[in-house]
Amino acid sequence: MVKVAIMGHGVVGSGVTEVLIHNHDSIAEKAADSIEIKYVLDLRPVEGPLADRWITDFATIENDDEVSIVVETMGGLKPAYDFVKRCLSAGKSVVTSNKELVAAKGVELLNIARERNLNFMFEASVGGGIPIIRPIQQCLAGNHILEIRGILNGTTNYILTSMVKNGVPFDDALAKAQQLGYAERDPSADIDGLDACRKICILASLAYGRHVYPEQVYTEGIRNITLDDVKMAEKLGYVIKLIGRSVKLTDNSITATVYPALVPQSDLLSNVDDVFNAIMVRGDAIGDAVFYGRGAGKLPTASAVVADVIDCVKHVTARKYMSWEDGFDGYVVDHNCDCTRLFVVTDTQFADKVSESFSDCETVTDGERLAFITDIGKFGALTEKIKQSGIETKAVYNVLY
Amino acid sequence: MVKVAIMGHGVVGSGVTEVLIHNHDSIAEKAADSIEIKYVLDLRPVEGPLADRWITDFATIENDDEVSIVVETMGGLKPAYDFVKRCLSAGKSVVTSNKELVAAKGVELLNIARERNLNFMFEASVGGGIPIIRPIQQCLAGNHILEIRGILNGTTNYILTSMVKNGVPFDDALAKAQQLGYAERDPSADIDGLDACRKICILASLAYGRHVYPEQVYTEGIRNITLDDVKMAEKLGYVIKLIGRSVKLTDNSITATVYPALVPQSDLLSNVDDVFNAIMVRGDAIGDAVFYGRGAGKLPTASAVVADVIDCVKHVTARKYMSWEDGFDGYVVDHNCDCTRLFVVTDTQFADKVSESFSDCETVTDGERLAFITDIGKFGALTEKIKQSGIETKAVYNVLY
Repeated sequence: MVKVAIMGHGVVGSGVTEVLIHNHDSIAEKAADSIEIKYVLDLRPVEGPLADRWITDFATIENDDEVSIVVETMGGLKPAYDFVKRCLSAGKSVVTSNKELVAAKGVELLNIARERNLNFMFEASVGGGIPIIRPIQQCLAGNHILEIRGILNGTTNYILTSMVKNGVPFDDALAKAQQLGYAERDPSADIDGLDACRKICILASLAYGRHVYPEQVYTEGIRNITLDDVKMAEKLGYVIKLIGRSVKLTDNSITATVYPALVPQSDLLSNVDDVFNAIMVRGDAIGDAVFYGRGAGKLPTASAVVADVIDCVKHVTARKYMSWEDGFDGYVVDHNCDCTRLFVVTDTQFADKVSESFSDCETVTDGERLAFITDIGKFGALTEKIKQSGIETKAVYNVLY
Repeated sequence: MVKVAIMGHGVVGSGVTEVLIHNHDSIAEKAADSIEIKYVLDLRPVEGPLADRWITDFATIENDDEVSIVVETMGGLKPAYDFVKRCLSAGKSVVTSNKELVAAKGVELLNIARERNLNFMFEASVGGGIPIIRPIQQCLAGNHILEIRGILNGTTNYILTSMVKNGVPFDDALAKAQQLGYAERDPSADIDGLDACRKICILASLAYGRHVYPEQVYTEGIRNITLDDVKMAEKLGYVIKLIGRSVKLTDNSITATVYPALVPQSDLLSNVDDVFNAIMVRGDAIGDAVFYGRGAGKLPTASAVVADVIDCVKHVTARKYMSWEDGFDGYVVDHNCDCTRLFVVTDTQFADKVSESFSDCETVTDGERLAFITDIGKFGALTEKIKQSGIETKAVYNVLY
C-alpha cells in the first residue's frame, strides 16, 4: 500500500481525491499497488469522505515517513515552492499541476529529485488532461524535436472563439467567460498570455533540454484584439488564436513566443475551439503530431495528476529519467530576430504606400481599413520597414506558417 | 551498452536503423545507456553502414545472450509469431510494429513476457508514429475508458480525401494511392478494412483489459463508396470516413466495428485528411482527447519503435505493467445490437414510403436520389425497419454521433 498526501484541496486537488477514490480498484490494478490518501492539507476544512484526513500543518506530511508521494495542487510559488523542496528533501516524490512552479523552478526541483533518486512529475501543468509531457519525454524520445506550437490556454481560446464564431466583442466575451467560471475575476494571467507563457516554457525546456524562463519569452495577450481585426483576418482565410510557440534554430538557440497569431483555416489548430487546447509537436522522425483535449477543468487535470501518481508508484525504486539543464542569457533569441510574417491593418488612405513598399503582398479591405500580409522576414526588420514606409498601423499580428 | 537485433529490414526496419544511428547520442542520453545494433536479420542483403551486421539465420539472435532487445519489423504472422515467442523464451524483450501479430496473439505474447519479467511493446502497431499505446496505458491510467474512435488507416483516408475534396472516383483515387506508394499492389488489407480492424482490436484490448480478436469485429471496407454517396452526405453536413470504433457498454461487454461512417463536419475527425490518422479516446475523467499524426511511413513508425526500445532499456530489470486478459465469445456484442443512426440512400420514387416510415428524418435529394438519416436505434432493428417499409436502398452508412 502506498500512502499519498494531497496539498491543496481546491478545484484540481478535490478532483484528484475524487478520481483516486472513485477509480480506486482499477488504479490499484494498473499501479500494481493500492493507493491510499493519508492527508489532505488545506487551510479550509475538508468535507466528505476525507474529512478525517484533513490537516493544516505541512510539517505533518514532511515528518511522516509513511507518505512516499505528495501531490501539490495549491498553485502559485508561495508556499508551494518551499513545501515541494522540503518534500523532496524528506525523500518523497512529488507530483504537481502547478505550471508557475515548474516554469520558474523546474530545473532546480528536477535536480534535487535526481540527486535523491526521487520523481518530480508535472503532466498536469500543461494541457490539463491532455497527455503531452510523457509523450514528448518518452514517445518522441527517438526524435530531435524541431518545433512546438499550441493553443495552451482555454480561457483565451474560449474568448477568441466567441469573437470569431459569434462576433461577440472582447469585453462581452470575457464577461461571459467569467460568468461560466472559465476566467478568474482577475483574468490577467490568462488574457495577458502569462499562463500560456509558463506552459511554453515547460514544453520548450522538456523538448530541447534546457530551462526556459518566463521572462525570456516574448509574451503578448489578447486584450487589444478587435472584431474588425478578426473580420479582416477571416477575409484572408485566417483565424486569430493565442499561440505559444518554440522553434529550435540551427545554432541550437531557440525562439519562444506567446502572441495572438493568424492561423490558416486549413490548419488543424484553427479548428480548436472553446476551452479546448491543442499542441503540435514536430520531430525529425515523426513529422507533426497533434495532441488535443480539455486544457483545464477539475477532472481532466486530475486525470493527468493521477497518471503521474501511478507512474511514481510503479517507479518507486527506479526513477524516471526526466531532467534538463539550466538556461542562460541569449539561449532564447530576441523576438526581433524571429522569422515571421506580419498581418498589418492600416487605413485605406495608406493604400499607395502599401503598394509602394509591399507590392507583392496579398491585401484586403473593408472599405475603410486595409490589411496586408508581408513576406517572411525578421520581426524587427519587418516592423522597421513598416515604420519607414510611412504606413500608420492600427494593428499588427504575427502570421503562423 | 545494450545490444539490439532488428528482424526485418524493410521500410520500417530500415527506418529504425536510420533513427538509431542518426540520433544515437541523444537517444543514449535519454536511455541512460548506449544502444548498439548487433544484428540485422533479413533474407535480402543489408547494405550501407550495417552491412557487416547482416544475418539470415534467426538462431544467431536466439542463441546470443548479449542481445537483450529484439525489434520485430517483418510483419505478418509467419514466421514473426514463432520468432517473437522464441525471443521471449530466450529471455529477450521484444518491440514490434506488427499489428497483425498483436491483434492475433497479443494476449499470449504479453503473458509469456510477464511470466519471464520481460517487456513486449508495440507502440508502432497503431497510428504509426502517433503516441497512442503509451498514452492510453499510462497517461489515462486514472480513467475508465468509455470509447475509442479513430481514423486508423492512412491509405483509405487518402482515397476518401481524394473523393470528398477533389471529386476523384474510387478507382482513380486507389490507382493514385498505389502510384504514390500509399497502397499496396494488392490493396485489400487496407481498403477492405482489415488493417483498421487489427488496430481497433489492439486499442480495445488495451483500453478495456480483455483481448478482442479481428474475427469478433464487424468490418466493412470502402470499395462500394460512390461519389454520389459522398455528395449526398455533404449536403447534410457530413464527410464519409473509415472509422474504427469501440464502445464500453454498461454490462461490461463492448462494441467493436470498422465501417465507412458519416462524420459531422463539425467533428475534428472530419478534418483529418490524406494519409493522416487521428484517434479519439474518451475517459470518465479526461473527457475527449485526440491524438493526430502520420499513421504510417518509414520514419514516423520508426520513431514509435525507437521510443519502445528506449523504454525497454530503461526498464531492463523493472518490467512495464502492460497486459490484458483473454477474450471470450459474446464479449463483443453482435453488430445488429449496436446503437447507431443510419444514412440511407434510395431513389426519389420511394419518397412517399420514406415520409411514411421515417417521417421525422432529415432528408435531402439531388433530384434523382433521396437520402435520409434515421433516429438512433439498434443496427439490426433499423435495417429491418427499412426492409419492412419497402424502401429499396442504394447505399446504407452508419452515422457517427
